[in-house]
Amino acid sequence: MKLLILKENLKKGLDIVERIVSKNLTLPILNNILLDGKKNTLKISATDLEIGINFWLLAKIEKEGQITIPGKFLSNIINYLPSDKISLEEKNQNLFIEHKDYSAQIKGTSSQDFPIIPSIEKNNFIIINSALFSKGLLYVVENSSITQTRPEISGVFIVFDKNLIILVATDSFRLSEKKIVSQFKTSSLFKPVSLILPQKTARELINIISDKEQDLYVYFSPNQIMFELRGKESNQPQVQVISRLIEGEYPNYQEIIPKQYKTEIHLKKNEFLNQIKLASLFSDKINEVKIVVGPKKNGLDIFAQSSDFGQTQSFINGEVKGERTEVSFNWKFLVDGLNNIKSQEIVFGLNKEDGPATLKPVGDETYTYVVMPIKGS
Amino acid sequence: MKLLILKENLKKGLDIVERIVSKNLTLPILNNILLDGKKNTLKISATDLEIGINFWLLAKIEKEGQITIPGKFLSNIINYLPSDKISLEEKNQNLFIEHKDYSAQIKGTSSQDFPIIPSIEKNNFIIINSALFSKGLLYVVENSSITQTRPEISGVFIVFDKNLIILVATDSFRLSEKKIVSQFKTSSLFKPVSLILPQKTARELINIISDKEQDLYVYFSPNQIMFELRGKESNQPQVQVISRLIEGEYPNYQEIIPKQYKTEIHLKKNEFLNQIKLASLFSDKINEVKIVVGPKKNGLDIFAQSSDFGQTQSFINGEVKGERTEVSFNWKFLVDGLNNIKSQEIVFGLNKEDGPATLKPVGDETYTYVVMPIKGS
Repeated sequence: MKLLILKENLKKGLDIVERIVSKNLTLPILNNILLDGKKNTLKISATDLEIGINFWLLAKIEKEGQITIPGKFLSNIINYLPSDKISLEEKNQNLFIEHKDYSAQIKGTSSQDFPIIPSIEKNNFIIINSALFSKGLLYVVENSSITQTRPEISGVFIVFDKNLIILVATDSFRLSEKKIVSQFKTSSLFKPVSLILPQKTARELINIISDKEQDLYVYFSPNQIMFELRGKESNQPQVQVISRLIEGEYPNYQEIIPKQYKTEIHLKKNEFLNQIKLASLFSDKINEVKIVVGPKKNGLDIFAQSSDFGQTQSFINGEVKGERTEVSFNWKFLVDGLNNIKSQEIVFGLNKEDGPATLKPVGDETYTYVVMPIKGS
Repeated sequence: MKLLILKENLKKGLDIVERIVSKNLTLPILNNILLDGKKNTLKISATDLEIGINFWLLAKIEKEGQITIPGKFLSNIINYLPSDKISLEEKNQNLFIEHKDYSAQIKGTSSQDFPIIPSIEKNNFIIINSALFSKGLLYVVENSSITQTRPEISGVFIVFDKNLIILVATDSFRLSEKKIVSQFKTSSLFKPVSLILPQKTARELINIISDKEQDLYVYFSPNQIMFELRGKESNQPQVQVISRLIEGEYPNYQEIIPKQYKTEIHLKKNEFLNQIKLASLFSDKINEVKIVVGPKKNGLDIFAQSSDFGQTQSFINGEVKGERTEVSFNWKFLVDGLNNIKSQEIVFGLNKEDGPATLKPVGDETYTYVVMPIKGS
């Protein structure tokens, strides 16, 4: 392999693939990336055996070939080099880098040892705006369970239907659900599919696609999923993210989303968020804050107390419907839910201390955040 | 104690004193700050028994008195409150905070348990611009020794003479020396003094004074030092930092600053810094990079190699005087020295692998950074 490539291009590719290069001690080849020069492109690949990424870059290929080298290490070098053409050459499993008065020789490994990143049949797929899909994922991605005791809730549950995508995540204490309606196309052979996407894949995908307003192709197979962005002019693949899916049955989450509320209150989101954070300073080990809603006072009181520090109380205005109520929550779950919401006003729906409560943006029916109260406090 | 104070004022004071509030488990009172309302000011004090800080703020005092409460905790609360007047009231060793619809009660402790922050006789002192003194400290403060095996080099050595301040720090591998000439006043009873200032005090002082263009009063006593800023109109103390000094004899550091060089090279600072960082990626466990200076090639080569990764070489232009030379350094020490220098050009003075090398800014005789080579490589 011998090629010339612009520093900026190479950096763009390395920044993306190096994120999934692992520090794997038992399988050191996973610390490496695969460089593959062919025709007029350099393909960079990385995998952690769960996710694989392929990235294609324009380059002047003088000699086709492949090599694998430590990914973060190459990335560090390229970051320090000033903007200009960089020459990369493979000789005897070493990569030689030349750039003006700078030269380096990096020890590589044969590309034959690099794991194969699987490909997927391109029949069953949808096409959606990448920024739109990324925004949808952002609503839910951080609410997946972080423990591995119930692997089926450690990812994002996604339903791809003819005219509807539903994204769901839960850790059994709270749950978020986001819907995307109609704003996508489906392939002629499209069949509805529901799957559990690993949280790490969701995060990496957001990182890659969130700032792009491009068509995102999403291909389905029984055990894997592939996301693909294409070059605007060439219509050739530019980035591919291939991921395994999580096996198992996702819980029947719709059961726990309440259909009605004993108490509802309209609140200014930022005011509510700020006062919860303030109260949280006084909360105890189970992060408890107590919410008391009118209806005589038109608004909501937040209480917290700690045996070490003292106690706090604050009142915020809001329009109340329904009964007076007193419910305790883990303040972290309220903060997470409010942070997901972008609108200025929210509706907080409560069902005493027995049933789940919800946070919803006013004027947006596509997002629901469900949170369980702390019982018997 | 009962008083009204503007949020912004209180925050300014808390931000500064809370930095030295320690997480002290054996002496929990040190987690606290002392609030002392008297006449028309609130004085906030904190100490870790090494450094003490007093901060005076304008407040409307309705009832004089004192209380001590957890410092970081109060600071967190104040940060969340919107801008406005805050009411603070002491009752039965509790602090009651009121602010619009918010109220809190914080458990405090009797002010009698709070350690006394000593004061210093105000005879022997100098007056210097605070930003100027802070800049001087910044040249050297991070080069003190971090181990406590030789406590005398764990601080900044400072000589206050009639027309000259010398600031020095070393960890025995490298040394930095900064001089401030003439730009300060001395008291009528001034006597020259040399002392060792704890690194932590130097850092906290920089944090407090670096953005201020004010008179800084520096008062000396045999075991302590006090830094004071005064209100521009009132001429009353606004902030005081009182610190113990480190006991012991500072090494005769002047012996190791070379008077002449076998090789000298003028370099562009940023280019040199960048290439050292680039080479550092390949350096081994002792952080070794090898410097080779002309004189046939008008410039300097940097080499590094690692048995794991490979090797690197880069050349940078520079004007060379003296003999060809080949010397190895710990790249971290070179980077630290270069980071201290603000000028665009530097002189790198070398004495083969036996003697110390220096980095100096071109056109500024007041700063010298001395670094020992790695021998026998």
